[in-house]
Amino acid sequence: MARWEPDARQRLERAALDLFVERGFDQATVPDITARAGLTTRTFFRYFADKREVLFGDEERLPELAAHLVDAAAPGLGPMAVVQQGLTILATNAFDGRRDEIRQRKVIIEGNDGLRERELRKMALLTDAVAAAFRARGVDDLSAAVVAQTAVGIVQVSLRRWIESDGETLLADLMDETFTTLNRAFGRAGLEGC
Amino acid sequence: MARWEPDARQRLERAALDLFVERGFDQATVPDITARAGLTTRTFFRYFADKREVLFGDEERLPELAAHLVDAAAPGLGPMAVVQQGLTILATNAFDGRRDEIRQRKVIIEGNDGLRERELRKMALLTDAVAAAFRARGVDDLSAAVVAQTAVGIVQVSLRRWIESDGETLLADLMDETFTTLNRAFGRAGLEGC
Repeated sequence: MARWEPDARQRLERAALDLFVERGFDQATVPDITARAGLTTRTFFRYFADKREVLFGDEERLPELAAHLVDAAAPGLGPMAVVQQGLTILATNAFDGRRDEIRQRKVIIEGNDGLRERELRKMALLTDAVAAAFRARGVDDLSAAVVAQTAVGIVQVSLRRWIESDGETLLADLMDETFTTLNRAFGRAGLEGC
Repeated sequence: MARWEPDARQRLERAALDLFVERGFDQATVPDITARAGLTTRTFFRYFADKREVLFGDEERLPELAAHLVDAAAPGLGPMAVVQQGLTILATNAFDGRRDEIRQRKVIIEGNDGLRERELRKMALLTDAVAAAFRARGVDDLSAAVVAQTAVGIVQVSLRRWIESDGETLLADLMDETFTTLNRAFGRAGLEGC
């Protein structure tokens, strides 16, 4: 039996991200990662199915968290108010404080076609989860679909800005700024419903 | 020299789409396609680099067309009004009348992981092109990014509804309905700017 390693998961993540940046994702092997982390490959596979999972391990967690934020919002709140509130909580709970790591992941993903497409797929799964959560709240299909798509669009735009920012800005604030900017763009269109 | 074949491109597309549906994308070969179309593989490669291009041939055309619609809009029009107008023109010029073919493509793409991810990538390229066109109009970076992301989100939601519809509805009308639904959702949020 391997002995218990404190923080093994984080050490493996750290080592993997560093190696993916240094050598490229395809070139860094699991033995390279475990050697760098000072752990065994056996330990690696206790935490991750493969090296891809180091980058996409939160894939199942994010849709679940987002759906929960929609479920848990006050019953009288309109879909867009739910989105605005949810974005702030999501940013604070799942992202703020992890900028360097998320930025590093982004660099790795951007440098590899397969990873980039998988990242896009991840966003599509997030959209589906949010739309389902809105339908469960009684929101009609069309509104649920377009509000979910828009919410994930705001997340994507805000994440990109956050990663390119000076590191002093909170993602929660950028989410709010992006939301407000879009809201104003609709307001300025001077169209029905506003 | 192969003799000139009227409608060769369309015959190849038709044959390819039918075979992709019947056998699956990976199983249908270029010789299968050309045999079905009654044309030579040489003719096939005059029109398409490979069988993937039959599905994604419009990949470069769509961002260009969308960017042009943004460029060509009246100078005083706000970004969201440009989007609303552009969506209708895009639907009419690039999609309406082609529903069966686009629906068939969708079925093929949904059935294949690699194709599905490529489709998502295509949408990301479209978003980039629209954002660049808005920046060229003098719209600030953040507004350009979030408006472009939202516009492409509306396209995606509307296309899905159109493909699932009875075939009597115009995509242009669904685009407008999706746009209006999102606009109303922002209106209902009761937030600043509306």
